[in-house]
Amino acid sequence: MEDLRNTADPRRDDAFATTAARAASIAAELAGEHPADIAEVLDGEEPATASAVLASLPRERQVEILDLPDFDLSSDLIEALPVEEAVHLLTELSADRAADLFRWMDEPARTHLFARLPPATQAELNRLLAWPEHTAGSLMTTEFVTVPSTWSVGETLRYLREIERTRETIYAIYVLDPVSLKLLKAVTLRRLITGEAGQSILSVAPEHDPITADPRMDREDVARLISKYDLLAVPVVDEDAHVLGIVTVDDMIDAIIEEGTEDAQKFGGMEALDEPYMEIAFFAMLKKRAGWLSILFLGEMLTANAMQHFEGELERAIVLTLFIPLIMSSGGNSGSQATSLIIRALALGEVTLKDWWRVALRELPSGLVLGAILATLGMARITAWQLLELHDYGEHWGLVAATVGAALVAIVTFGSLIGSMLPFVLRRLGFDPASASAPFVATFVDVTGLVIYFSVALVILHGTLL
Amino acid sequence: MEDLRNTADPRRDDAFATTAARAASIAAELAGEHPADIAEVLDGEEPATASAVLASLPRERQVEILDLPDFDLSSDLIEALPVEEAVHLLTELSADRAADLFRWMDEPARTHLFARLPPATQAELNRLLAWPEHTAGSLMTTEFVTVPSTWSVGETLRYLREIERTRETIYAIYVLDPVSLKLLKAVTLRRLITGEAGQSILSVAPEHDPITADPRMDREDVARLISKYDLLAVPVVDEDAHVLGIVTVDDMIDAIIEEGTEDAQKFGGMEALDEPYMEIAFFAMLKKRAGWLSILFLGEMLTANAMQHFEGELERAIVLTLFIPLIMSSGGNSGSQATSLIIRALALGEVTLKDWWRVALRELPSGLVLGAILATLGMARITAWQLLELHDYGEHWGLVAATVGAALVAIVTFGSLIGSMLPFVLRRLGFDPASASAPFVATFVDVTGLVIYFSVALVILHGTLL
Repeated sequence: MEDLRNTADPRRDDAFATTAARAASIAAELAGEHPADIAEVLDGEEPATASAVLASLPRERQVEILDLPDFDLSSDLIEALPVEEAVHLLTELSADRAADLFRWMDEPARTHLFARLPPATQAELNRLLAWPEHTAGSLMTTEFVTVPSTWSVGETLRYLREIERTRETIYAIYVLDPVSLKLLKAVTLRRLITGEAGQSILSVAPEHDPITADPRMDREDVARLISKYDLLAVPVVDEDAHVLGIVTVDDMIDAIIEEGTEDAQKFGGMEALDEPYMEIAFFAMLKKRAGWLSILFLGEMLTANAMQHFEGELERAIVLTLFIPLIMSSGGNSGSQATSLIIRALALGEVTLKDWWRVALRELPSGLVLGAILATLGMARITAWQLLELHDYGEHWGLVAATVGAALVAIVTFGSLIGSMLPFVLRRLGFDPASASAPFVATFVDVTGLVIYFSVALVILHGTLL
Repeated sequence: MEDLRNTADPRRDDAFATTAARAASIAAELAGEHPADIAEVLDGEEPATASAVLASLPRERQVEILDLPDFDLSSDLIEALPVEEAVHLLTELSADRAADLFRWMDEPARTHLFARLPPATQAELNRLLAWPEHTAGSLMTTEFVTVPSTWSVGETLRYLREIERTRETIYAIYVLDPVSLKLLKAVTLRRLITGEAGQSILSVAPEHDPITADPRMDREDVARLISKYDLLAVPVVDEDAHVLGIVTVDDMIDAIIEEGTEDAQKFGGMEALDEPYMEIAFFAMLKKRAGWLSILFLGEMLTANAMQHFEGELERAIVLTLFIPLIMSSGGNSGSQATSLIIRALALGEVTLKDWWRVALRELPSGLVLGAILATLGMARITAWQLLELHDYGEHWGLVAATVGAALVAIVTFGSLIGSMLPFVLRRLGFDPASASAPFVATFVDVTGLVIYFSVALVILHGTLL
């Protein structure tokens, strides 16, 4: 239907009015909801509606929503706001969150907004942005609580009441030497409230030294610290025991889940997506998948070379081709098992680089036993089909069965060894062990498996079929 | 050297004296260390030494160590203690930890010890042990803080000071209706201390209703709640909004990491080990690996049937065999990519069961494009080798290249579709989607891939090679 009114762009006005009306009704509905639930609703709306809804919420609520680490829309919404508004919100966000938003923001908004921030905020953000991604330094926030060791329990509690609003967590209180400002103790709020007001803060401190992290520590290691010591936050300190920031347990949970997703996708034989499956653009996803798939394909092309090399043997003993898929896949499967075990053990710190030979000494007998089990199944299959006359493998069927059995033992052992050693090799070379994906190991073992199979065949069938 | 002294068993006495001396020196060294570090040292000692060290520590320290969720030795150490001692420690442990220890304890120690516990503790443990493993009910602890909504901030703080020692966390305070005992609000300790002593506890409560979990909720869903709302603990409530227990963030971190390990091992094509790689007994590990490996092998045997079925074609066109490994593995790799994507998306709640057709509509074009890319590479390889006279694929080499290309498009598309749909099918049938391991998908796609390859060959090469 044609619009007959003669205004500049009536449809745009209509659209705007609709957005505003929709935004107002959504905002009214959401009043009193948990910020995380509001964020979820905003995530499902058009960007224009989402930013209109956000703008109509109280300032305090806006900060709470933008502060949520899972809320992916934050940097887009900030960019869409008037500059004054955006700068104001950015200074009120927690420092680690603001740093993350600047990491993800597009130019020129990024440079433009950064220049408008107060100098103190700029300096604080620069300190956080200096650390490489996925390190304790990049995950930490600078809004933590420190008190001098000369304070009493009562003084500390009064101080906490004042500054509660401006700190990411007040559950851990860091006690510093009043002169050197070095970290002496970490006191929990729960222990603090059990103390008498007049007592020294040190009277409620634990005996042991505080657990700390280095700013260059990988997030997986920080997660291990937090999990091992059941902490709500871990202080990040420099060489002089000065506290640079803290990493809190909620940021850590997000990091652990993200790390798990990355590892799973890498193990599946692709680049980590970095975005939810249903949200990533179609071609961005294809790019992440096509790269590894093509590399694996090029590697797997070597199987064609191996096959060509043995084409003469293939023609003389076509019966050998029947078991190629069976034998190849067994090597790949045993390799994939071993790799997933070792990647995970390395990630959790259950084994370290220097344990490689211990692992090899476990995988060698494992491979032999597993190979022997599959060899028994394989030879039984051939014998059964031959004796039940389901298929005729020729007069030398016994030797064919022996070839398949011996090849299975060799290939499963080889697969287990290669699969378990590859993560060590990758870590040694400075790569993520999780890059040793199931398809990668399978490809590696496929090519060598074919060579092993034909070599075994040449030995066993020499003088009969070959 | 023979022992010449004539005592009952001098070597045993010596061994005992050595253990005791060693235990004493270790205990002295560990005084003042963090319980998690003491646990780590104990983990590396002989069981006899470990229990001697534990026995020589102060009671309070013993409880802290046995309470650590990662300390696997706890149930063994409890079993090794005198019954009186064990019962006393078990009543002092947090309820969720004591329930876990009973889950892992061997008979008859389990029944024997349980019978000696005070009736109240027995009842409490029975309530926890009734919930299936990996549910919120089985993870929760019953040591939480509740106060009636009629209390003031000051009353609540005084109460917290008294009971701090006996609660797993006091950072979340659950406010109940004084009559119905229904959960009204969850107040954080940080907000509580900012309130005035005379104000009502409700004055520091948030606007929104408390976030709660159902006792039957899976631990992955509980983790999602805790991560989404950045909680330190989530209350587990029954249908009448009565609080049954709480799940704390530190227990959740351990659960998330454990879940990640299980998923990774399953995806690698084996049963989850449930124990660290270097600690699990050799044959226990073999059992977990051999089962799936044998099942996969039996499935893969169908490739031999498929090959036998096409043996006539193989003999006439031996050139086709050269590309079997290449084509099969491409199907497996694309399937493995799709599976790892969807397993993870399902685990994180990014897609749900009803999204299966959306995923299928994404994977179909993805598979076609990825297949076309690999087909181009494959046909280029055959053409190059033929024209550069590196290998002779016969007079119909162009048709062979076309066969390989068409088969790759079909198989990669099929692999992506099967790989993405399998996790949905498994979840629909009530299995863990993570059981759709890379090897499982590869096996599935291998068998069908062979049939697709030969069918394509029959169409394209009909009248020439076949």
